[in-house]
Amino acid sequence: MTFSAAVLTLYPEMFPGPLGVSLAGRALGEGTWSLDTVQIRDFATDKHRTVDDTPAGGGAGMVLRADVLAAAVDHARALHPGAPVLAMTPRGRPITQARIRELAAGPGVIILCGRFEGFDERIFAGRAIEEVSVGDIVLSGGEPAAIMLLDACIRLLPGVMGAASSGCEESFEEGLLEYPHFTRPVEWEGRTIPEVLRSGDHAKIAAWRKQRAEDDTRLRRPDLWERHRGVRGQPASGARHDNEEQGQ
Amino acid sequence: MTFSAAVLTLYPEMFPGPLGVSLAGRALGEGTWSLDTVQIRDFATDKHRTVDDTPAGGGAGMVLRADVLAAAVDHARALHPGAPVLAMTPRGRPITQARIRELAAGPGVIILCGRFEGFDERIFAGRAIEEVSVGDIVLSGGEPAAIMLLDACIRLLPGVMGAASSGCEESFEEGLLEYPHFTRPVEWEGRTIPEVLRSGDHAKIAAWRKQRAEDDTRLRRPDLWERHRGVRGQPASGARHDNEEQGQ
Repeated sequence: MTFSAAVLTLYPEMFPGPLGVSLAGRALGEGTWSLDTVQIRDFATDKHRTVDDTPAGGGAGMVLRADVLAAAVDHARALHPGAPVLAMTPRGRPITQARIRELAAGPGVIILCGRFEGFDERIFAGRAIEEVSVGDIVLSGGEPAAIMLLDACIRLLPGVMGAASSGCEESFEEGLLEYPHFTRPVEWEGRTIPEVLRSGDHAKIAAWRKQRAEDDTRLRRPDLWERHRGVRGQPASGARHDNEEQGQ
Repeated sequence: MTFSAAVLTLYPEMFPGPLGVSLAGRALGEGTWSLDTVQIRDFATDKHRTVDDTPAGGGAGMVLRADVLAAAVDHARALHPGAPVLAMTPRGRPITQARIRELAAGPGVIILCGRFEGFDERIFAGRAIEEVSVGDIVLSGGEPAAIMLLDACIRLLPGVMGAASSGCEESFEEGLLEYPHFTRPVEWEGRTIPEVLRSGDHAKIAAWRKQRAEDDTRLRRPDLWERHRGVRGQPASGARHDNEEQGQ
C-alpha cells in the first residue's frame, strides 16, 4: 500500500526537494510513497488570488485566511480520505518518534505549511487540524519542517531501509538517546575505541551500551530522562523493567 | 557581509533544495548568504572511496569514520575560518531560537550531516563539533535538519525579511509561544474574531495577547513555561518583569 503525502503550500516547487534523492527518492520512484502538492493560492476567491490579510488587532506581517485554507484542506481531504491533517507551527505539540511511527503506519498524511505571520487560528478547530512543532525555532515557513517530518515517516515504510537496518531503531525507542557509535580505525589521533566494544563479550557490550544510553540521556536531556523514569515507574506503561525482572 | 554556509554531506544534490526558493532563494541570489557543499566521500583515502565501516561491538548499520569526517571538516574550516561546526544528531542539544540568533549574527556555519547509524563519536571531541538536535525524531540523514536550521538563520539576516516584518519576532522571544492570530473575515463558519481584537483599544489588545501567550504556553508547553518562570524569578537574568515593575 502506498503512503500518500499531500503538502499544502504556497511554494510547491520546494517539493520533493531533498525527498527526491537517496532513500526517500528511490522509494518515491518505486511507489512506496506518493507526493501531491496543493497550491493554497488556487483556493483564493478574488481576482488577485489573495491568501492573506492584515492581523486583527494590528501588528506587523500578514495572516493566512481561514476560508482559503479551509477550501484547500477540504480539497486535500477529498483526495486523501483518512489521512490526518497536520499544520506545521511553533505553537504546536512537539513531534515525537512515537507519533512518527503512528503516521508511518497509516494511510498517509496531509501537511499544511504556513508562511508570513501564521494561520488564522480558527482553521485548527474548524477543520480538526493537529498543530505540530519541530523545535523551538522560527522558520520562514512550514516547508522545511514538512520535509523533515516526511523524511522521518518515509524511512519507516516497509522496504525503505532494507533488511540490514530495519531492526536498529535505537534512538528514542525507550525514550532514551542512543548510545554512541565507534568504528575503525581502533586508534585515531590518540583516541581509541572503548575497550569493552573490542572484547567480543556480547553481554558486556549490551550492558555498556545500555549504561551509556542512560548516562547520556540523564546528562544531556534531563527532560527525556524524567519522562523515561516516570514511565518506568508505572507498571501498566508497557516499558521494560530489565533490572527489576532480573532480580526476581 | 555574506553569511557563509557550508554543508558536509554524502548528498550535495539535496542543496539548496527548498533554500533555493522564496525568501532564502532570493537572498542567496542577492549574495546575502552563500552555500558551499562538501562531498564527504571526496575525503575517503581508499580506491573504493569508503566513508563508513561496521560498528565496533557489533550491531546493524554502518558508522561514518572519524578520519574521513575529520579531513572533510578540516577542509571546510580552512575555507570558512571562524564559522562554528555543527553536527545534526538526535544525541545533540536541542536547537533554540537564541542559538539561531547567535549563529545568524556570526560569519556563517559549517554543518555536518550524518547518514547510516551515525558518526564515530570521537569526531565530536576531536574537532570541537557542536552536536545539535532538531527534535526527538529519527531522520534518514542530517540533511533535512540542516535545511531547517539554515532557513531559521537566513530569515534573520539583514534585509531578508524586509522592514515590514523585521520587528515581529514574537515566537520564543521571551521563551513563550506566540499568541494566536486572526484576520478577515470577522465571522467564518460561525466562528468570530475575539471581540477585543476588534476594539481598537491598543492597550487592551496588548494585554490580551500577553495573556494568551502565557496561557497557551502554560497549557501546551509546561516545559517552556517552567523555564520562563524560572528565568523571570532571577533578577540578573535580563528578563522583563512588567508586572512587578508596574506594582512599584
